Amino acid sequence: MGNERLTQQISFLVEIDKLKTVLRKTFIMDRSRHENTAEHSWHVSLMAVLLLEHANEPSLDLHRIIRMLLLHDLVEIDAGDTFAYDTVGYQDKEERENAAAERLFGILPEDQRDEWMTLWREFEDGETPEAKYAAALDRLQPVIHNHYTGGVSWKNNGIVRSQVLKRLQPVREASETLWKFTQDILQKSIDLGILRDDPVSTKEE
Amino acid sequence: MGNERLTQQISFLVEIDKLKTVLRKTFIMDRSRHENTAEHSWHVSLMAVLLLEHANEPSLDLHRIIRMLLLHDLVEIDAGDTFAYDTVGYQDKEERENAAAERLFGILPEDQRDEWMTLWREFEDGETPEAKYAAALDRLQPVIHNHYTGGVSWKNNGIVRSQVLKRLQPVREASETLWKFTQDILQKSIDLGILRDDPVSTKEE
Repeated sequence: MGNERLTQQISFLVEIDKLKTVLRKTFIMDRSRHENTAEHSWHVSLMAVLLLEHANEPSLDLHRIIRMLLLHDLVEIDAGDTFAYDTVGYQDKEERENAAAERLFGILPEDQRDEWMTLWREFEDGETPEAKYAAALDRLQPVIHNHYTGGVSWKNNGIVRSQVLKRLQPVREASETLWKFTQDILQKSIDLGILRDDPVSTKEE
Repeated sequence: MGNERLTQQISFLVEIDKLKTVLRKTFIMDRSRHENTAEHSWHVSLMAVLLLEHANEPSLDLHRIIRMLLLHDLVEIDAGDTFAYDTVGYQDKEERENAAAERLFGILPEDQRDEWMTLWREFEDGETPEAKYAAALDRLQPVIHNHYTGGVSWKNNGIVRSQVLKRLQPVREASETLWKFTQDILQKSIDLGILRDDPVSTKEE
């Protein structure tokens, strides 16, 4: 019985190795290549530990936040990384990711399948303070990458400030300090010419 | 004051991105390339969540284990990955890694520097039940990779069973179930011809 559980768990560990081959639009800081989703998940998990003090909500459950962030993108193994600004890709994103979650977490023993599925849904639903803080960091991390890589992914994809600001709304809700930081880093990116500002007529405040 | 802390924290987040470029001897499961240390850290952190039930010691602090595993290899940014079976590299490993820890964690605000340094030392000292369990997984993960990639890293480096068994002793102490699994997977690897057995004269029981 114990052995059967372990066999399922090892199969799962082998399967999720595939996340190391899912590439994001973001570049790693030395600009040598695209970032993959496994290393992104590592980075954003450490970021959650590091920046916890800036959350608006006091006494968040950091342990749950980290577990959520470690597994939040596993569905990309089947569903791929949907680029943040890909409106077509977003149309069936939910459906693709639900199917991926069913298959992937289905490899696990039942109790763990349910537990991991619950954590993943908490992140997706984005309603608990923990999920909101986790989402904020997940959105903020690529902005920092873009800023420090000369905006390569913004430029490649013709992104303008209002699109980033819209995408970064979860930061606004999760942390006053990080929201101010977000606005500052975007302004600095525009001043450096690595992010395009909106045409005057469509500018958001 | 808050801003100065955040500036230090963001500098640290930018700096640790370099872990994505530190390559290990291990290959990812599809054998397309070497694994990097950032994605290894992600994988082994999830492994810790998944396999906790197999730890000999009851009621380990999983939260501390995960944080330890997320940061345990950051020192490789300066010190590089010392291959598990590199006896020359191990001679000054401690010195190189201590200097790396001082520099890297020194980027952080003082309280966080102390906290992260303490966690890292706990892992390195390997004396608490949490550090022992974390070390066991850190040793076991590349064995699973080797088994599922046809022993490519074992073969490339002329490794034999007794070397792996010696390296895997932390598993023996941390988990009876995982120690049995380790012995089984090594026997299976030998049967498949992807790991060399020891000459009869040096065989360990």
